[in-house]
Amino acid sequence: MNHSDTLELSLQLLRQPSVTPVDHDCQKIMAERLEKVGFKIENMRFDDVDNLWARRGTEHPVFCFAGHTDVVPTGHLDAWNSDPFLPSIRDGKLYGRGSADMKTALAAMVVASERFVAKHPDHKGSIAFLITSDEEGPSINGTVKVVETLEARNEKMTWCLVGEPSSTNTLGDIIKNGRRGSLNAVLTVHGKQGHVAYPHLAQNPIHLASKAINDLCETVWDHGNEYFPATSFQISNIQAGTGATNVVPGTLKVTFNFRYSTEVTADELKQRVLAILDKYNLSYDINWTLSGLPFLTPVGELVNAATTAIKNVVNVDAELSTSGGTSDGRFIAPTGAQVLELGVLNATIHQINEHVNVDDLDPLAEIYEQILIELLALK
Amino acid sequence: MNHSDTLELSLQLLRQPSVTPVDHDCQKIMAERLEKVGFKIENMRFDDVDNLWARRGTEHPVFCFAGHTDVVPTGHLDAWNSDPFLPSIRDGKLYGRGSADMKTALAAMVVASERFVAKHPDHKGSIAFLITSDEEGPSINGTVKVVETLEARNEKMTWCLVGEPSSTNTLGDIIKNGRRGSLNAVLTVHGKQGHVAYPHLAQNPIHLASKAINDLCETVWDHGNEYFPATSFQISNIQAGTGATNVVPGTLKVTFNFRYSTEVTADELKQRVLAILDKYNLSYDINWTLSGLPFLTPVGELVNAATTAIKNVVNVDAELSTSGGTSDGRFIAPTGAQVLELGVLNATIHQINEHVNVDDLDPLAEIYEQILIELLALK
Repeated sequence: MNHSDTLELSLQLLRQPSVTPVDHDCQKIMAERLEKVGFKIENMRFDDVDNLWARRGTEHPVFCFAGHTDVVPTGHLDAWNSDPFLPSIRDGKLYGRGSADMKTALAAMVVASERFVAKHPDHKGSIAFLITSDEEGPSINGTVKVVETLEARNEKMTWCLVGEPSSTNTLGDIIKNGRRGSLNAVLTVHGKQGHVAYPHLAQNPIHLASKAINDLCETVWDHGNEYFPATSFQISNIQAGTGATNVVPGTLKVTFNFRYSTEVTADELKQRVLAILDKYNLSYDINWTLSGLPFLTPVGELVNAATTAIKNVVNVDAELSTSGGTSDGRFIAPTGAQVLELGVLNATIHQINEHVNVDDLDPLAEIYEQILIELLALK
Repeated sequence: MNHSDTLELSLQLLRQPSVTPVDHDCQKIMAERLEKVGFKIENMRFDDVDNLWARRGTEHPVFCFAGHTDVVPTGHLDAWNSDPFLPSIRDGKLYGRGSADMKTALAAMVVASERFVAKHPDHKGSIAFLITSDEEGPSINGTVKVVETLEARNEKMTWCLVGEPSSTNTLGDIIKNGRRGSLNAVLTVHGKQGHVAYPHLAQNPIHLASKAINDLCETVWDHGNEYFPATSFQISNIQAGTGATNVVPGTLKVTFNFRYSTEVTADELKQRVLAILDKYNLSYDINWTLSGLPFLTPVGELVNAATTAIKNVVNVDAELSTSGGTSDGRFIAPTGAQVLELGVLNATIHQINEHVNVDDLDPLAEIYEQILIELLALK
């Protein structure tokens, strides 16, 4: 069988069991290819995380492909129809852990860069790769640290394309041109433990908090805007009680998350939550974690290059979206770079039997190449 | 030191580490004393539970002392100021696991019976003891089985005094002349698991159930009556979520308990709960466990004998109450017996450093003896 370059490199990367935060030589495989076509390679290891910064050229503007080589764990191996680290093609689909998220996009980036460089050896500005092995994990020693290093030496990106699987129904139908902010909280409501038979001697934190929780669930936090859906509030965990059926619990723990638009700020959300808790005179502790500020890349050079390339290659009118989960784009956007996410279909990411359409790989590489042409080719 | 009979027997029982369901010879110690004064002894062992049925006399009416030799676990030994099974007297208090719940009452019952029999060898009717080692545990092979055995041979009690620690501030201030019913439920609310970033693809069972839970917490189930406090609803456990902060949980589990008066029935409570759940169109499963029907012994011979004895011995006007937790009285009352609970102070039961006032032991034995005199002495 005569595999395309992109498929061949995808298979090579998929065979590496790079469960987060292990890179398992994926970056080495990519770097060797990039080095051959003129990229300067920098390996930046922080603690147990491998990061690759590769750049071809020293001038501005800088176009950067960003992504990650790590994958989420496989889950029960028995549930897979084929070994998640022995990629397998069946019925036009490429199965393997990381096939959608996001090793095929990494392969497409490398192949696109090789082809572009072959045709445009003296391109404008620079092409760069920012690749980490810590996107699926705590995201502490990955893109954050690389960006800090680059910022410290005043090395800036102009445009950044994160190869996350943004497509929903067909390749290129969705470009993520921003992401909502993500604010987490762990709320502990204090009551007084006791025996269920003597409720007057106890204070049940579940009962005390029930109105406040209901209010939090029912509050409309905003209505979103042109680029962002409405801010959403979700309780991910709630826990009180020891298992005993005759004990009134002493504390209630509630973990919740906001995905928020640019219509509110994290501080405003915090104040509004506290106001609801205080309205019911609750005794509580709350610990906040801001895991990502919202960012937005309005229509401009990068978005236009991507929509044009998608239209040209697959004849799809891409839609801009800021919905969905966080990505490393949140760490890059604050540097001032235009950031978007564009990759394969995300229907099976993190799932058993993760897969991608084989027929989407070559078009994706071509879209990436077209974007490079649009932004960096001398005309 | 010259210990009273009741204290001496209490110390002997407290030295037996009879953690539920182990009797550890406590019943043997009691039975040997009772046999000497004319009781016929029957040991009824069911599975791992020892039970004692002792009776002096064959006639009616039958006055029965009921109680248990088992104790709850000690908890962390380091937290005790003295070994829980080496009873220790300090500052007028007798420390030890089971000192309040309820070995001192067992000692008082035996001593009261001995004294009564010595003075009234030809008393009316019968005196009986129904003692189990499974009151603090599952309560399956204890009083329930003994009562079944007695019922099968049509052996009835007229009056039953359960020696549970009923007193609250001073010895004899509270007589429990009934108990509320206890109805447990485990409610599982079904939602749809998903990613917090895609709430429209998930259905958060915590959000779905928040109004219903609030309604359950706020409902007034009844207003109680002359003998019973209002029915109370308490959630003992609530749980949803896997710990992950980015996952909308698929199910919510809520465990709750009703302590209910004779103004409602268990069936009515169930119907009202289901109506609330259905009002919000929840998808749920619910499993009910009825752990005790309410019972009541109105003012009559037994209650009058107890209040008179308390007034005579300690000059306290006893109050009738049906509050507090369940006891084995719930299994005896359905046979038609008048049942009440009367014992030492319950302030430290099930706690670290459980203790009882040494000065309460002799008066308790005297109260028990006076009750026997009132009900069974030939006049």
